[in-house]
Amino acid sequence: MPDRQFVKYTFLKVDPAWRRLPDAERAEGKREFLAACEDYGAERLLRAFSTIGTRGDCDLMLLAQATSLERIHELHVVLGQSGLMKWCSIPHSYLAMTKGSEYSDDSRLEIRPQHSKYLFVYPFVKTREWYRLAAPERYRVMQEHIRIGREYPGIDINTSYSFGLDDQEFVVAFETDDPGAFLDLVHRLRGTEASAYTKRDTPTFTCVATSVERALNALDGASLDVGLESLAS
Amino acid sequence: MPDRQFVKYTFLKVDPAWRRLPDAERAEGKREFLAACEDYGAERLLRAFSTIGTRGDCDLMLLAQATSLERIHELHVVLGQSGLMKWCSIPHSYLAMTKGSEYSDDSRLEIRPQHSKYLFVYPFVKTREWYRLAAPERYRVMQEHIRIGREYPGIDINTSYSFGLDDQEFVVAFETDDPGAFLDLVHRLRGTEASAYTKRDTPTFTCVATSVERALNALDGASLDVGLESLAS
Amino acid sequence: MPDRQFVKYTFLKVDPAWRRLPDAERAEGKREFLAACEDYGAERLLRAFSTIGTRGDCDLMLLAQATSLERIHELHVVLGQSGLMKWCSIPHSYLAMTKGSEYSDDSRLEIRPQHSKYLFVYPFVKTREWYRLAAPERYRVMQEHIRIGREYPGIDINTSYSFGLDDQEFVVAFETDDPGAFLDLVHRLRGTEASAYTKRDTPTFTCVATSVERALNALDGASLDVGLESLAS
Amino acid sequence: MPDRQFVKYTFLKVDPAWRRLPDAERAEGKREFLAACEDYGAERLLRAFSTIGTRGDCDLMLLAQATSLERIHELHVVLGQSGLMKWCSIPHSYLAMTKGSEYSDDSRLEIRPQHSKYLFVYPFVKTREWYRLAAPERYRVMQEHIRIGREYPGIDINTSYSFGLDDQEFVVAFETDDPGAFLDLVHRLRGTEASAYTKRDTPTFTCVATSVERALNALDGASLDVGLESLAS
Amino acid sequence: MPDRQFVKYTFLKVDPAWRRLPDAERAEGKREFLAACEDYGAERLLRAFSTIGTRGDCDLMLLAQATSLERIHELHVVLGQSGLMKWCSIPHSYLAMTKGSEYSDDSRLEIRPQHSKYLFVYPFVKTREWYRLAAPERYRVMQEHIRIGREYPGIDINTSYSFGLDDQEFVVAFETDDPGAFLDLVHRLRGTEASAYTKRDTPTFTCVATSVERALNALDGASLDVGLESLAS
Repeated sequence: MPDRQFVKYTFLKVDPAWRRLPDAERAEGKREFLAACEDYGAERLLRAFSTIGTRGDCDLMLLAQATSLERIHELHVVLGQSGLMKWCSIPHSYLAMTKGSEYSDDSRLEIRPQHSKYLFVYPFVKTREWYRLAAPERYRVMQEHIRIGREYPGIDINTSYSFGLDDQEFVVAFETDDPGAFLDLVHRLRGTEASAYTKRDTPTFTCVATSVERALNALDGASLDVGLESLAS
Repeated sequence: MPDRQFVKYTFLKVDPAWRRLPDAERAEGKREFLAACEDYGAERLLRAFSTIGTRGDCDLMLLAQATSLERIHELHVVLGQSGLMKWCSIPHSYLAMTKGSEYSDDSRLEIRPQHSKYLFVYPFVKTREWYRLAAPERYRVMQEHIRIGREYPGIDINTSYSFGLDDQEFVVAFETDDPGAFLDLVHRLRGTEASAYTKRDTPTFTCVATSVERALNALDGASLDVGLESLAS
Repeated sequence: MPDRQFVKYTFLKVDPAWRRLPDAERAEGKREFLAACEDYGAERLLRAFSTIGTRGDCDLMLLAQATSLERIHELHVVLGQSGLMKWCSIPHSYLAMTKGSEYSDDSRLEIRPQHSKYLFVYPFVKTREWYRLAAPERYRVMQEHIRIGREYPGIDINTSYSFGLDDQEFVVAFETDDPGAFLDLVHRLRGTEASAYTKRDTPTFTCVATSVERALNALDGASLDVGLESLAS
Repeated sequence: MPDRQFVKYTFLKVDPAWRRLPDAERAEGKREFLAACEDYGAERLLRAFSTIGTRGDCDLMLLAQATSLERIHELHVVLGQSGLMKWCSIPHSYLAMTKGSEYSDDSRLEIRPQHSKYLFVYPFVKTREWYRLAAPERYRVMQEHIRIGREYPGIDINTSYSFGLDDQEFVVAFETDDPGAFLDLVHRLRGTEASAYTKRDTPTFTCVATSVERALNALDGASLDVGLESLAS
Repeated sequence: MPDRQFVKYTFLKVDPAWRRLPDAERAEGKREFLAACEDYGAERLLRAFSTIGTRGDCDLMLLAQATSLERIHELHVVLGQSGLMKWCSIPHSYLAMTKGSEYSDDSRLEIRPQHSKYLFVYPFVKTREWYRLAAPERYRVMQEHIRIGREYPGIDINTSYSFGLDDQEFVVAFETDDPGAFLDLVHRLRGTEASAYTKRDTPTFTCVATSVERALNALDGASLDVGLESLAS
């Protein structure tokens, strides 16, 4: 049986002062950050997303997965040594684990984003009333929710669990190429019985899928190749 | 059939330290920002508003529209390269999309601000009870709201939708030349049945319509022409 | 018929680093700020208050009134050019308008502070239940509130309206020379029927009335005359 | 009849950068702060407390009392001129007045801390339901509260009132040498009928009573005598 | 009879600018911090945890215990003198005391973490309704909670009490080597009757147990030995 995975969403905000540094220094800091990601991603899931233009409080999100919490910790220690992280804060951070779902028989011991163009992420807390319902009643309520979701086959969901590990109960990540369809789905789900048991589902992040390198380039509009040239001169 | 549009409200706050920079450096930073806006606005909707004097937490708001989210993302990457953004934070940011309304048959696939003098913007969240009402009941409740609104023909509304994309459900933007009439309208709407289903409608922004150039000039009281002279000397 | 007025409360916090500047630079920055206020105040209401010692999050409050929102905007653009504002943030800001009251026949189209020693200011939001009451019922409930207020003739009230313009519904400003009597009045009003319809009435600011010059001198304990001497030497 | 007093709790947080200044500069800044306190305290109540180790958001608390609000204002203007305050923020600030209590016949027109080792301070807001109870009912409910309090004779209470003056309704300050007994008392009071009418009683500050000089020395672990030597060398 | 203990959880966040200091300066600052911890820990409980990778708002947590509050205060004064603390803020801080539990006869006058790999910490506030229940009813409700907890023998709990001392009522710290089991336990406890009386149980911290030295090394990825070499060269 496969292991459960730790799942980490780390949202970074770059200090505007970083953009005032010399080109070569910025390029070097990004290259160190990229190296840490490539090292980690060689054997485990690591994905990068840009939130520039979709949020005001963060610029880049890393999604990392590992079977050991130590590996998640080490990734962030190594990232912290990069020149880029010396100018970053982490305004949002979500730690979670995978777990078999009680509402479906899919194996859910890994999250497996499908390389869609967008990821929509939010921390999720249900009301305590929800947990006081009997299991068959919760199952019944969820069927409407699941049924509506199935009408949108281009939208996949990755759910992970944070009970006792972080401030939320779940971290929910939807992925799709079609933001309008996703918006319409969420709008429709507001009317379901399950929706009344939502206590918190914000902040809600629209994340643009990209490579680590391109997410880094978006921070200052400079490609790492240009940076290399700057260093060489 | 026309495409749905992405709508982005980006509120900027300039670090007070920026105003301590040399005139020429400020002018150059503003000019780069202006160029990014002009480039974007050549083919799409981009409007600028000043919030100096109406808010304490922001100075300038950009309203941008595009059929692709990538274009919104790219606009903010290019803005980020301007000298001005190296001294700015984004304290408020709202991402939304257009959508046909269920309460009227107007085509609403674009927002079309009418060059009124003021725009009043707020993120909007309704209670979950609202969404549990049957559609005919919601329709009935909205009629009183709409009827009162029609008594104020000088006030137009632009609604966009953020379900699943951002922290709010709607972004509402009223425009008018007459703030007193708008205040009276909002006061009257407090007594409607629909109003009881409001969960959150703050922060509320009074935005003064202007050109990008004038919004930039208001940041330091210096016109870009003066800045050019400073550079030349 | 006189015009309705825009009313603006702007609370400033000076960066502690400003107090580390040379005397002459601070004096110059204050003098520019004072000049902007004197220019505005020559034709319109502009009052200054100190909150040093009464609040931790702000130092100085300006109360400005104008028949046009552009004039309020311009005042803040000109203030922003002063040396002092290059070291200030605006932690609290309230925009409002005057309006005839539905509970009294006084003309209320201007706020007219009477030069009392203290001004007590707070943003005010009522519950939605309040607005669902029939007008005669609201009128009845307000009578007890008004009757108690009249037992304190040394306390005057200036109410302005922010529906749709800012985050609050009202900005309430009481003025008196006797803070103890005001405290006792507010304590008594807690027991009225009207009080149950209060949703928010904080932050609450105790503001010490003074001249702009003295409010500026309180920021660094240096009078502008001393500053002038410093510049001359 | 004695006058009512203004009571001010000012909590300071020192910027970590202050600790990087030269010894002599820190000592000079503390000495100026101390002089302002000694001058004020010569004729009025001024007490100092350290919150280092008990809170993360503040380092030092000053409790000042005066019959005039101007004197409280002036104290803070003079403190602001000290070198220390050029590196401090005021994350918490409570303004209040004394008032005769409706539940006991003690004279309460002054707060008189008894030099206990600890002061436990919190701002306090009751629910509006509390104020709607008839006075005899409120009196009845308070008797249980007061009776339990009397079982802890080593714990004294100083209550002051902030209605209309600041964000809270009361500022409550308990003093004792025995924190464990105080904790047990507060735990027991949770079960009283009165407790159900509490709307807010945080933040809660554990304050270690000390002299101004020792509270200042705790900020950088340097005694002012050492500082004098540094200046002399 | 043994004394009750004070328990302090201090969460530190290092300013990103600290990582831009020369290696030797960082090493020296960490060494001073380590010395303060070793001195304190020689006679009392002091444990270090890293939150790098699990949280975005803090990097390191110290858990300290003492029979006197003065000793906790002094620890933080001495820590404040270290070079490291000149670049740190304390975003979270919890002060508590031990106390015999009313639900079990275990002696609980000390917290005794068992060197598990992880500590899960959160401040805890119950609803006022909880405290209004009769003691036998509270006892009954807790039995289900305790019974479920006993099904997870690899998870220990350390509870301390903050009534009147800090913003929360309890500080709860679970320890285990198995985060997945702990997550499952917390998920199951959501359905208990006791869970309905939870008012607040966030922020929730996943803390990785380590030595002080290793927690410090994780801050900049540099071991103190390397630092010593840097100083020697």
